[in-house]
Amino acid sequence: MRTVIPQGFRLAVSTAGFKRSDRPDLALAVSDAPAAAAGVFTSNLFRAAPVQVGQEMLRESKSARAVVINTGQANACTGQQGLADCRRARELTAAAVGLRPEDILPASTGVIGVRLNMEAWGRGMSGLDDALGKAGLEEFAAAIMTTDAFPKYAGEVLEIPDGKVVLAGVAKGAGMICPNMATMLSLVLCDAAVDPAVWQAMFARVADATFNRATVDGDTSTNDTLYGLANGASGIRVDNPADCGRLEAALTRILSDLAYKLVQDGEGATKVMRIRVTGARHDKDAELAARAVGHSQLVKTAMYGKDANWGRIVCALGRSGAVFEPERARVSVCGLEIFSHEQPASRDYDALLREPLQKRDIELDISLGDGPGRYILLASDLTHEYVTINADYRS
Amino acid sequence: MRTVIPQGFRLAVSTAGFKRSDRPDLALAVSDAPAAAAGVFTSNLFRAAPVQVGQEMLRESKSARAVVINTGQANACTGQQGLADCRRARELTAAAVGLRPEDILPASTGVIGVRLNMEAWGRGMSGLDDALGKAGLEEFAAAIMTTDAFPKYAGEVLEIPDGKVVLAGVAKGAGMICPNMATMLSLVLCDAAVDPAVWQAMFARVADATFNRATVDGDTSTNDTLYGLANGASGIRVDNPADCGRLEAALTRILSDLAYKLVQDGEGATKVMRIRVTGARHDKDAELAARAVGHSQLVKTAMYGKDANWGRIVCALGRSGAVFEPERARVSVCGLEIFSHEQPASRDYDALLREPLQKRDIELDISLGDGPGRYILLASDLTHEYVTINADYRS
Repeated sequence: MRTVIPQGFRLAVSTAGFKRSDRPDLALAVSDAPAAAAGVFTSNLFRAAPVQVGQEMLRESKSARAVVINTGQANACTGQQGLADCRRARELTAAAVGLRPEDILPASTGVIGVRLNMEAWGRGMSGLDDALGKAGLEEFAAAIMTTDAFPKYAGEVLEIPDGKVVLAGVAKGAGMICPNMATMLSLVLCDAAVDPAVWQAMFARVADATFNRATVDGDTSTNDTLYGLANGASGIRVDNPADCGRLEAALTRILSDLAYKLVQDGEGATKVMRIRVTGARHDKDAELAARAVGHSQLVKTAMYGKDANWGRIVCALGRSGAVFEPERARVSVCGLEIFSHEQPASRDYDALLREPLQKRDIELDISLGDGPGRYILLASDLTHEYVTINADYRS
Repeated sequence: MRTVIPQGFRLAVSTAGFKRSDRPDLALAVSDAPAAAAGVFTSNLFRAAPVQVGQEMLRESKSARAVVINTGQANACTGQQGLADCRRARELTAAAVGLRPEDILPASTGVIGVRLNMEAWGRGMSGLDDALGKAGLEEFAAAIMTTDAFPKYAGEVLEIPDGKVVLAGVAKGAGMICPNMATMLSLVLCDAAVDPAVWQAMFARVADATFNRATVDGDTSTNDTLYGLANGASGIRVDNPADCGRLEAALTRILSDLAYKLVQDGEGATKVMRIRVTGARHDKDAELAARAVGHSQLVKTAMYGKDANWGRIVCALGRSGAVFEPERARVSVCGLEIFSHEQPASRDYDALLREPLQKRDIELDISLGDGPGRYILLASDLTHEYVTINADYRS
C-alpha cells in the first residue's frame, strides 16, 4: 500500500554511511508550520543522548518543526560526548534545511556504546534540502530500519464533521533487541490542529494501549521513542471531545497496526500470540498474568513448536504473582477451551488444534475468574533463529 | 564419588514402568526410626497432588519414616482423582514395606495433566521391601531423573564436638521445565537428632539461599519439593546454637552444590552464570536486578555466544525496576570491569575476555552504588538446544 502523507509535511531520506550498507540511513520529516509535538520515551534508567535531548526540548516547548532519525548508531551509553554529538547533529540538520536547532526532535537507533559518526552525519546533510518532499512514507520507514525485515508504516484518513484529517505513522524495531539495535522508534504525522497538551496526553494513553502491550523478548531498550507532530495544515482544528475521541481512536488503530508489525517482525519470530486475560481482580493482575505467559520461554518455544501446551501456560499463570483461585482459571487456545477446573479438557485438543496452530496468529484467551481486570498483550515466539541472531550477532 | 548414606536410612529403587524406559523410575527412602521431617514446596498456585498431600501431612505431624518418589508422571493438574491416586499410592507403599501411610511423604515428577499409572505403581511395589538398603545415593538420584543428563547428589560428614553427623542429599531437575517435566525435587537425609521446628526453619532459610537462587528459564513448576529427614540414628543431638549453626552451614553447602548442578544441567545449557549484585538500596532491589539479568533472553543468548555484551546487561538493569543512579552502575565480566560511568571500558575487553568466556562458569559482578543490598543468582544460558528440546518435546 502507498499511504498518503498528511498535508504540510515533507519527508526526505539520505545515505550518510552510518552503516556499512549503502542504503539510506538518515530520515527527516519537516512540517511547513510549527506543529504540536508529543513524545513518549523509554522507561529504561539508561537513556540514550537523543532521548535526553528530546525530553529536554519537549519540557521547554510543546512545538516542533521536524524530526530527524539516524540508524546504525544509537548514541546510547556515550556520556557527555554523546549529548554534544546529538546537539551538533541537530545544528547541522537545522543549517541544511533552514530551521532552528530547537525546532528539531532527534532520534537514533543502532549499536549502543558507539560514538555517533559526525563525518557520516555531515555527508547525510548534503542534498537533504533538495530531497525534502521526494520521499514517501515507505522510503522513510525503510531508512530507519535496523534488523527489521520490512518497513513498517500505517495511515488513515479520518473523517470528522469539519472535514478530513490525515494521520500517518512509521515505526521500526525487530524486538527489544537492545543493545546491538536500540530498538523501537515511531513517528506519527497529522495535519489537524490539536492542542499540544491534549496531543501529548493522547499519545501517552495510546502508547500504553499499543506499543507498551507488545513484546518480543521483554527487553526495553535505551532508545525507545515515539514522536507525534500535528501541524494543522488541513485547516481543521480537533478540539471538541467528540473529535478528540475520534482522533484518539484513529491514532490507536495506527499504533496498534504498527505494534502488531513490530511483533510480527520480532527477531526470528514465526508467531504472533494475542494473549487476552480477563476476569482478574484488577487490570494490574491481568497484566502480570499476561506478561508471565508472553515472556515464558516455555510458552514461546511451545508456540514455535505448534504445541497447544496448556500446562506451560497454566504454570506461568500460577507463578505470575496474579492472585486468583486456580480452580476458576480457564485457558483457550485458538478459541478452543483446553483447560478448566485445574484439569485439561477431555477432548483431543491436540488433533483439533493441529490446523489452527499452523497459522501465524495464535489467540490465547485466559480467564482468571469473574473480576473486572483485563489486559491484552502481543508476544512473539522463541525460535532457533532468535538464538542464532542474538548469540552470533557480533561474531 | 560415592557418598555415604546417613545411619539408620535404607534406600531402594524399583522399575515400575511409569516411563517407556526400563530404567528404575521409583525411589524409596526409609528411616528405621521416626525422623524429624521438613518440607519446602512450590510457590505456584497450581500445586500437584503430592505437594498438597505432603503439605497436609506436615501440618499434622513434623515426623515421618519415609519419602517415596516416582518419575514419569507428575500427578499435577489431575484434580480430586489425583489426590485419591496419591493417597492410594502411599497406602500401597506402606503395605509393601510395613509402614503406616501417614509415615510416608510423597513426591512425583514427570508429565503434567496425566493420571498416575496405578498399575505401574503396583508393579513398582513388588520386591521393594527386599530391595531396601541395596540402593546407594547415586542409584536413588538416578531413579528420580526426568530429562536430567546426570544424577545429582551430594553429602558431607559434619564433625561437631559431640561426634560425627552425616548429611546426604539428592536432587533432580534440568530446568523449571514444567509442564512436561514437573521439575525440581530434592531430599536430604541426616542421622542427627534435630528439633522438628528448628529443622523446618533451617530448610526454609537454606532453600531460599540456594535453590531459590538458581534459575534456568524462570518457570516455577507445580511440583517443586524439598524434603528433609533427620532420624537421630547417629545418637547425636544437634540442639545448641553452635551445632545448629554448623548443621545449617553444612546443609547450605550441600544444597548449594545441588543447586549448581541443577543449573549446570539446565536444558541445553552450556554456561552457568553467577550473577552477583551489590551496592543496591536493599536486597530486594539487588534481587530485581539479578533476576532481570539472569532471565534476559538477550543476556542468556549473548553468554551462549561467548559475547561480553555489557550493553544487554546494562539494558536489563535499567529496566529491572531496581532504583539506582545509572552513572554509578558498574559491570564486570569474569573479573574484568567493562562498564562504568554510563560508558563501556576503553580497553579491548573483547580480546581480554575471549579466553575466560570459553569457560562454563561465568562471573557477572554488578555494583549499583554503595547501598547495603546484595543478591546472588545462578543462571544458565539460552541455546539452540534449549529451543529444540522445548519446541519439539511432544512431537
